[in-house]
Amino acid sequence: MAILPIDGGRYGTPEMLAIFGGQKKVDYQLAVEAAAASAQADLGMIPRAAAADIRRAARPGGVTESRIRRLEARSDHDTAALVEALGEKCRVSTRPWIHYGLTSNDLVDTSTSLQMRDALSIVEPKTARLAVNLSKMADRYRLLPAVGRTHGQHASIISFGLKFANWAAEMARHLERIAVLRKRVLICKMMGVVGTGSMMGPRAIDVQKRAAARLGLFPSEASTQVVPRERHAEYVFQLALMGATLEKMAVEVRNLQRTEIGEVSELFRKGQMGSSAVPVKRNPTKSERVSSLSRLLRSQVSVSFENIPLWHERDLSNSANERFTLPLSSILLDEMLVTMTKVMAGLSINEKRIRENLDTTGGRIYAEFVLEALVKKGVPRMRAYRDIQRVAFAAAKTGYMEALMSDRSISSQLSPAEIRAVFSPESHLGASSRIISGVRRIVERAARGTA
Amino acid sequence: MAILPIDGGRYGTPEMLAIFGGQKKVDYQLAVEAAAASAQADLGMIPRAAAADIRRAARPGGVTESRIRRLEARSDHDTAALVEALGEKCRVSTRPWIHYGLTSNDLVDTSTSLQMRDALSIVEPKTARLAVNLSKMADRYRLLPAVGRTHGQHASIISFGLKFANWAAEMARHLERIAVLRKRVLICKMMGVVGTGSMMGPRAIDVQKRAAARLGLFPSEASTQVVPRERHAEYVFQLALMGATLEKMAVEVRNLQRTEIGEVSELFRKGQMGSSAVPVKRNPTKSERVSSLSRLLRSQVSVSFENIPLWHERDLSNSANERFTLPLSSILLDEMLVTMTKVMAGLSINEKRIRENLDTTGGRIYAEFVLEALVKKGVPRMRAYRDIQRVAFAAAKTGYMEALMSDRSISSQLSPAEIRAVFSPESHLGASSRIISGVRRIVERAARGTA
Amino acid sequence: MAILPIDGGRYGTPEMLAIFGGQKKVDYQLAVEAAAASAQADLGMIPRAAAADIRRAARPGGVTESRIRRLEARSDHDTAALVEALGEKCRVSTRPWIHYGLTSNDLVDTSTSLQMRDALSIVEPKTARLAVNLSKMADRYRLLPAVGRTHGQHASIISFGLKFANWAAEMARHLERIAVLRKRVLICKMMGVVGTGSMMGPRAIDVQKRAAARLGLFPSEASTQVVPRERHAEYVFQLALMGATLEKMAVEVRNLQRTEIGEVSELFRKGQMGSSAVPVKRNPTKSERVSSLSRLLRSQVSVSFENIPLWHERDLSNSANERFTLPLSSILLDEMLVTMTKVMAGLSINEKRIRENLDTTGGRIYAEFVLEALVKKGVPRMRAYRDIQRVAFAAAKTGYMEALMSDRSISSQLSPAEIRAVFSPESHLGASSRIISGVRRIVERAARGTA
Amino acid sequence: MAILPIDGGRYGTPEMLAIFGGQKKVDYQLAVEAAAASAQADLGMIPRAAAADIRRAARPGGVTESRIRRLEARSDHDTAALVEALGEKCRVSTRPWIHYGLTSNDLVDTSTSLQMRDALSIVEPKTARLAVNLSKMADRYRLLPAVGRTHGQHASIISFGLKFANWAAEMARHLERIAVLRKRVLICKMMGVVGTGSMMGPRAIDVQKRAAARLGLFPSEASTQVVPRERHAEYVFQLALMGATLEKMAVEVRNLQRTEIGEVSELFRKGQMGSSAVPVKRNPTKSERVSSLSRLLRSQVSVSFENIPLWHERDLSNSANERFTLPLSSILLDEMLVTMTKVMAGLSINEKRIRENLDTTGGRIYAEFVLEALVKKGVPRMRAYRDIQRVAFAAAKTGYMEALMSDRSISSQLSPAEIRAVFSPESHLGASSRIISGVRRIVERAARGTA
Repeated sequence: MAILPIDGGRYGTPEMLAIFGGQKKVDYQLAVEAAAASAQADLGMIPRAAAADIRRAARPGGVTESRIRRLEARSDHDTAALVEALGEKCRVSTRPWIHYGLTSNDLVDTSTSLQMRDALSIVEPKTARLAVNLSKMADRYRLLPAVGRTHGQHASIISFGLKFANWAAEMARHLERIAVLRKRVLICKMMGVVGTGSMMGPRAIDVQKRAAARLGLFPSEASTQVVPRERHAEYVFQLALMGATLEKMAVEVRNLQRTEIGEVSELFRKGQMGSSAVPVKRNPTKSERVSSLSRLLRSQVSVSFENIPLWHERDLSNSANERFTLPLSSILLDEMLVTMTKVMAGLSINEKRIRENLDTTGGRIYAEFVLEALVKKGVPRMRAYRDIQRVAFAAAKTGYMEALMSDRSISSQLSPAEIRAVFSPESHLGASSRIISGVRRIVERAARGTA
Repeated sequence: MAILPIDGGRYGTPEMLAIFGGQKKVDYQLAVEAAAASAQADLGMIPRAAAADIRRAARPGGVTESRIRRLEARSDHDTAALVEALGEKCRVSTRPWIHYGLTSNDLVDTSTSLQMRDALSIVEPKTARLAVNLSKMADRYRLLPAVGRTHGQHASIISFGLKFANWAAEMARHLERIAVLRKRVLICKMMGVVGTGSMMGPRAIDVQKRAAARLGLFPSEASTQVVPRERHAEYVFQLALMGATLEKMAVEVRNLQRTEIGEVSELFRKGQMGSSAVPVKRNPTKSERVSSLSRLLRSQVSVSFENIPLWHERDLSNSANERFTLPLSSILLDEMLVTMTKVMAGLSINEKRIRENLDTTGGRIYAEFVLEALVKKGVPRMRAYRDIQRVAFAAAKTGYMEALMSDRSISSQLSPAEIRAVFSPESHLGASSRIISGVRRIVERAARGTA
Repeated sequence: MAILPIDGGRYGTPEMLAIFGGQKKVDYQLAVEAAAASAQADLGMIPRAAAADIRRAARPGGVTESRIRRLEARSDHDTAALVEALGEKCRVSTRPWIHYGLTSNDLVDTSTSLQMRDALSIVEPKTARLAVNLSKMADRYRLLPAVGRTHGQHASIISFGLKFANWAAEMARHLERIAVLRKRVLICKMMGVVGTGSMMGPRAIDVQKRAAARLGLFPSEASTQVVPRERHAEYVFQLALMGATLEKMAVEVRNLQRTEIGEVSELFRKGQMGSSAVPVKRNPTKSERVSSLSRLLRSQVSVSFENIPLWHERDLSNSANERFTLPLSSILLDEMLVTMTKVMAGLSINEKRIRENLDTTGGRIYAEFVLEALVKKGVPRMRAYRDIQRVAFAAAKTGYMEALMSDRSISSQLSPAEIRAVFSPESHLGASSRIISGVRRIVERAARGTA
Repeated sequence: MAILPIDGGRYGTPEMLAIFGGQKKVDYQLAVEAAAASAQADLGMIPRAAAADIRRAARPGGVTESRIRRLEARSDHDTAALVEALGEKCRVSTRPWIHYGLTSNDLVDTSTSLQMRDALSIVEPKTARLAVNLSKMADRYRLLPAVGRTHGQHASIISFGLKFANWAAEMARHLERIAVLRKRVLICKMMGVVGTGSMMGPRAIDVQKRAAARLGLFPSEASTQVVPRERHAEYVFQLALMGATLEKMAVEVRNLQRTEIGEVSELFRKGQMGSSAVPVKRNPTKSERVSSLSRLLRSQVSVSFENIPLWHERDLSNSANERFTLPLSSILLDEMLVTMTKVMAGLSINEKRIRENLDTTGGRIYAEFVLEALVKKGVPRMRAYRDIQRVAFAAAKTGYMEALMSDRSISSQLSPAEIRAVFSPESHLGASSRIISGVRRIVERAARGTA
């Protein structure tokens, strides 16, 4: 009987959910204990045999979540329970060396870094793949003229492919951001109760460095009891920012799928119901869901910010909410990424409607180009502007080109042939093709970096 | 293997969790179907026998969540699945009358109102009880003088009880807010696909009104497909606002429990561990948890706001995130309420430290009262102010009273006896007692309203 | 050379800006000093002559902002400067009685309440007027059938007037909220440094009560040095919530004004430019501005929340940001209210397009009603649903009614006349008229309460 | 009569305010027109003479804000007014070439990038300087043992310098973030109405590239009418994140300045008033202000997020709020940076209190180290833990060391000399010195990058 729709199975991919499950969390913490012990043995701080024993006992599943829960029920302290449970699996002589010189939070923070490391490893290639797919879609539709809309109004002509190129370029920037963010976010911290490494002395730094290398993390340069939370805020922000890009795509699909526009629609599975009362509708429900989840995802950013100014060498006020924000932001972003990838892959693009929509305004969409043609003839911009506007508002709905031809102040400057040349959508794609090619190169470079 | 700590059992009281569990959600929806059918039968819209059949089948547990999940897997539409499953439990002749004139969202929104109704019924008496307890604690400590701190600095004398009175009064205001909020938030909506009640015609309004009465809800005056989301924002805001009051109490406990202050401490259970490395600490972990969860709770408000401007007669962008925000805000607030109630009940108050702390500044805490004594003697406020400041900064740490007595500009105005009279904490409690009594009356009135 | 667009004159009505200007702020504080002195004189705490002298000197403009700024430059303390400046305007014998028993923040908080009182007095009647106007527009268009859209898709028929009725009802709820909020928000606090009223003793409560009455405020039941900030959060929330309703209206205008929909458009002033490059566009810029400002307005809510858990008897961390949030939220909401009122008053409603749009789907919009007709004939809902969906997807764009007539499974249940009857928009307005009338009554009652 | 405290002169440095003033904004836009014209002339798109004429007229102050306001009053369009005003200052033959191929928003977005470029140039060296100063303070106090506090409780020993090292390292990370963010945020966009560069054709890309180089910006790879707003969100986030670090420092100062702790205090200017009622207090008002403004600063992040999913090729809903968020976030962060730099420079550090506070717990602060000593002797951790806890709770306040010596289970493991050795604060600084040196290197490297 699940309460929230993540544990209920509604949202979340299996691979991402796995990272945040109970036993997996234990395994991450065991890995940290093993890495610490190994590093300490390398440096002669603890016996080699103890480290080997710990490594053996600390293999995935070596200690079970249920055993820890039972011990925690007694002590009310989860890390102490883990250390005790791990001790049960080790030789008696090993026990003093378990968790040597560490504090609970060394485990908590470093294992959280392992979760973030693995979450990024899931999210990054999906982002790369989506970027590449979008870039290919841009390519495919680079020569298809479509209405460009600003303020919800028909404004000009675009290459339909440009929409995808914009998204692809944005995804490439996210890859760029992820690439530089890892070293600031994936931190190994082993400096004990108040960040001095006092139990291990100056060599605590070496332990931390070696353990970090074993764990695929970066050693903390300075910390209190905890890794500074501005790092976690950056992680959550980056995921939320990617969510906002996906939301942008989702909003565009929802708008282009409007009954009145009809340029795209989400794949509609056979047998799927549109609405319990209205059977013929095809609702962009996947994109709507992405819009919805994006709001939730980015609300986590404000929580992350408030966790930054902890008191002194730490207070606990980050702890309870991070049990939500870190899994939630990772799981939601991944869910949204997969959803929008599917939406894009299955997107039905209605070229006919796209071309028809160019004529909705009876030619007024070319006004910008008439303006430029007049300006090039030497008509002052403001006068040209007023003339075009006047004709547009006066003309009947369908005959803007004709109205221009028969308007004296226009026709004195532009011949019918010149006017007709303006009313050709293909000639207004401008730099679209070059932009799309440029984006393709950028995306491929960024995606290679993640392979 | 739970992912989030609500399904994992870490946070949430059984009574509140029950409201948001899967079968209970089904039961709420069944109750809505039954109420609609009953209202329609009363108005002669559907056969009485059909309504009776539906009521029978729609009793709690009459349709199981698992059956619905199975049907949903086919149609990808959860409400349709519920209607179908309910139909299976009814006579064939009843089936056309199930969900008659309703749309999916009539069920979703109205059953959500039932959840909010029950959540408020859980939260309100707990709030009342906490308010009363706080008010009693205020009473108990009304004559205990304590340091009043502003900017983290010792500033003046308060009645220690005043701290509790402030919180009690704030809780009483929350009760007041809850009382007026119900009619705006607990809405029954049965107006079909786009809010016109088209299937039932003008009498849809009567159906809605009767069904609302059966369900303990308020009929919607106007809606689209959905109940307007500004109502839900008010609900979430109110819970988050109560959370912020609890957070304020939590921060105060955390500060007063500081090693250097030591005026209060959270109950420390025998055998409980303070920290895995530092055995002697008593950390205010419950209050820290409340601080932490409050951040998460109030982050839901921004999500609720963004759900308000839905497109046209509705879009789905509120849906996915409300699966989180409404349970989360209810469950977290309740958890925090229970936690702070326990913290207050078990709070160890160290009267000795409270009295000792009055002397920390060697008497400087009485400066405000010396100032007033001088002003009453006719010394211009600014001059008195400068004099007092000068003496305070010059005097040795412990001898402020003596330094004042031997300062010429002071002693020319105030006799030693007058100065000595000022340095008595009990004489500076001002209106504290009357305030505390006043709050007690307010709290008791507010609490009676909830009984 | 203004930096922010409020001081720059871009946003803000003169009446609202006036409340937050420098001299007005001084005047509010003077009024508080006068009210305190008067109350104290009434109770025999200070000489009647002193109170009269203070009242005289503390009239609006009696002390100038510039004088205070000069004195503040010396002491770095703005309230002390005000008290000193006020003293300069009083007799020497009066001076000891100025600010008697008060602390700076008594002035700050109580004068802020006066600002909020006046801001609500500006906002409330505008809200009432807008609610009434919307209700009248609802009335005017109650019989105009229009497309009801869900998920951006044509879903069903609504009364066009219902859109306005929904907004009107929401505005009425805001009036209801404002009515109950005043007593919680407009607080007079005169209890000195730490909320005990120590300088005045138990009668501080009486002073506060009398001063509150003079100022049109409500006395604080309990406070620390400051009025509890959960009250201010409620104020900001309420303004932001109204902003969200206005945003909802704005988003609807922007969507209905889309080139492809064209059901409404904002008034376009003669000579106004649409865009510097595209002269023929009519952009819904006012509504877009409301959308934009609403985001800013509601971001103030999170700031207000964080101000609630101040330390002990207060810390200053609410102060600097409230210099922004309280004026900003008041000014922005008022600006948005005025803007949307203008948008609604000037809204050009294109009835022709509204009627044409009903046919966009070639009749599919009536599917819901065909479904009901079939169900009423005894066809199981799910079968009817599948049939209708099948015909809809198969039929050519324009001939849904005809396709239904010639489909055997449909025509075996419904005669051509019955089908034709379904395809009449006027017959599907359902309860719209009654809803609109009901809202009108609610709005008028709520508006009367504000007159 | 200023409304908001930025135009009122309360917050904001002159250098940062200058960037966002009215004329400066005009100058930035003129610079963009000049850069576009120059690039176009280089590419033979417009006459060289026209470009030279435009450059001359578009020098700073070449067109005045007041002239633009006058023209705007007529057309209601600010960019058109600027183009017209610029035309007035150019030869008639030049006029057709002004703003050639551009749209309003090319100016708006590119000139905003110039503001952000200059804002970062102000903020970055201040950050570097603060980082270096903090690093030096870390160095100065590296050998001073101090109480390390977790959960507000005395927990262990730290080097007092470590506090500064943590902040210095965090500032260095901010420098690192700023360094990689410029290329994503400081964008030159000149691709016209819908991002295709249609007026200039494929060579629009070359124009944009050359203009970007002239302006010290980066060319947009792809855009709609506007530069994608996820870039602006990154800018605002980065400033807010720096604000959160400053807030962390501020909260630490406020806490360490508490009367009961007294380890540091903000500089108190002679003649400055502490409070209007309590003359002897020294309040950390600067740090409190930073705490306050940080809340406001980071609330801008949520606004920036909501601006990302604009409709189609753009809607205007980002525009009005960006008039606030971009100046506000830049000005507030700069103000906070300057304030905390002053706080740190003037910070009075009370070494005597820092040393005294080590004894507050009567030696219990060494418990962690006793635990480790026992564990090293082979005592099982959990048993050692219980023993230490038992003695600590039983012992009188002052005699923890003595109590340990006389406890049988402890003294059977540790000799009095061994116990005494543990109770020496200097021996528990662990790796602090190495950490501080490491941070110094990191900070100096990062600061060099900004020189």
